[in-house]
Amino acid sequence: MKVIADFCLIPMGQGLSLSPYVAECQRILRQMGLQHELHAYGTNIEGEWETVMEAIKRCHVRIHEMGAPRINTTLKLGTRSDRDQTMRDKVDSVETLLNQDT
Amino acid sequence: MKVIADFCLIPMGQGLSLSPYVAECQRILRQMGLQHELHAYGTNIEGEWETVMEAIKRCHVRIHEMGAPRINTTLKLGTRSDRDQTMRDKVDSVETLLNQDT
Amino acid sequence: MKVIADFCLIPMGQGLSLSPYVAECQRILRQMGLQHELHAYGTNIEGEWETVMEAIKRCHVRIHEMGAPRINTTLKLGTRSDRDQTMRDKVDSVETLLNQDT
Amino acid sequence: MKVIADFCLIPMGQGLSLSPYVAECQRILRQMGLQHELHAYGTNIEGEWETVMEAIKRCHVRIHEMGAPRINTTLKLGTRSDRDQTMRDKVDSVETLLNQDT
Repeated sequence: MKVIADFCLIPMGQGLSLSPYVAECQRILRQMGLQHELHAYGTNIEGEWETVMEAIKRCHVRIHEMGAPRINTTLKLGTRSDRDQTMRDKVDSVETLLNQDT
Repeated sequence: MKVIADFCLIPMGQGLSLSPYVAECQRILRQMGLQHELHAYGTNIEGEWETVMEAIKRCHVRIHEMGAPRINTTLKLGTRSDRDQTMRDKVDSVETLLNQDT
Repeated sequence: MKVIADFCLIPMGQGLSLSPYVAECQRILRQMGLQHELHAYGTNIEGEWETVMEAIKRCHVRIHEMGAPRINTTLKLGTRSDRDQTMRDKVDSVETLLNQDT
Repeated sequence: MKVIADFCLIPMGQGLSLSPYVAECQRILRQMGLQHELHAYGTNIEGEWETVMEAIKRCHVRIHEMGAPRINTTLKLGTRSDRDQTMRDKVDSVETLLNQDT
């Protein structure tokens, strides 16, 4: 089962700068060979359900190791049984419509 | 690693009544022996990371089998390395403060 | 337009105990006369769109005043144009199905 | 009060193709002059709290008018009192760290 996810991890009790933690999660996603795209409020990930979930678990384990005693993650998970769809497809289908406006 | 989760699954392309799908997810959580509590906008779940994640995957598989071609889940995941905390503890600590108001 | 919301506010840079902040948000919801119900991962709120949104804004303003320099809120918003539905209705419709299991 | 938001609206009971609804929300954000960026699982928005919230309300009203009887929105809201931060800043601070890896 393929999944498109949106992943936003917040370490707590670690001050206000989150970028070192977000960067570490990006490294984990890259090492696991997962398609991913950082945006201003999270990271989109595309892959097999088990691989994506394993990556998210590794992020929690690693961020705790980096010293964060408490972590709060928000995750969206989209699955389809009717057809394959990539992250790129989702953005393209909206942009195609917007381009027809003019 | 223990996790407290908040799970909200929405089947798409299946009409407006979601309760049969939500009820089926409750059955899966119960069968897996996971502590869980339904609220008006999702279900809180408490357990080991792997068990909780396995339950959520089974919910997606089952809801697709029930005919929903597209599913969108929103999930919150809270982990702590400093101490154990239950769903009950989280609610109690707020209510204790509110009870001191009067 | 009526809305059923699920509201979860996390102050950052403020240590690990969130209950004083959550309790303060509960007080604001109560003062504004909004139906609300605390659960282990947020608070369900029911009311007119403008009132609910005003309450959430006041929570952000107040939590900043309490000293939190950075706040991250997760919010779900459900609206319907076909019929009225309360938070209680949503839980009841699932529990009715589950009670028929036995 | 400035806010950076992540907005994901799902119309229900309207079939599986969501792009016409997402495109309409993009038009509303553009008409209101809000900085926004579409990604594969939502849209990041940056602006004054009131303007962003007014835009999201207009999206709900408009999508109901387009025929969707039920809407489910997931929203993240980030505010800071310590300093100004843009959507671009958030992505840049992570990418700067990642670029130092090599």
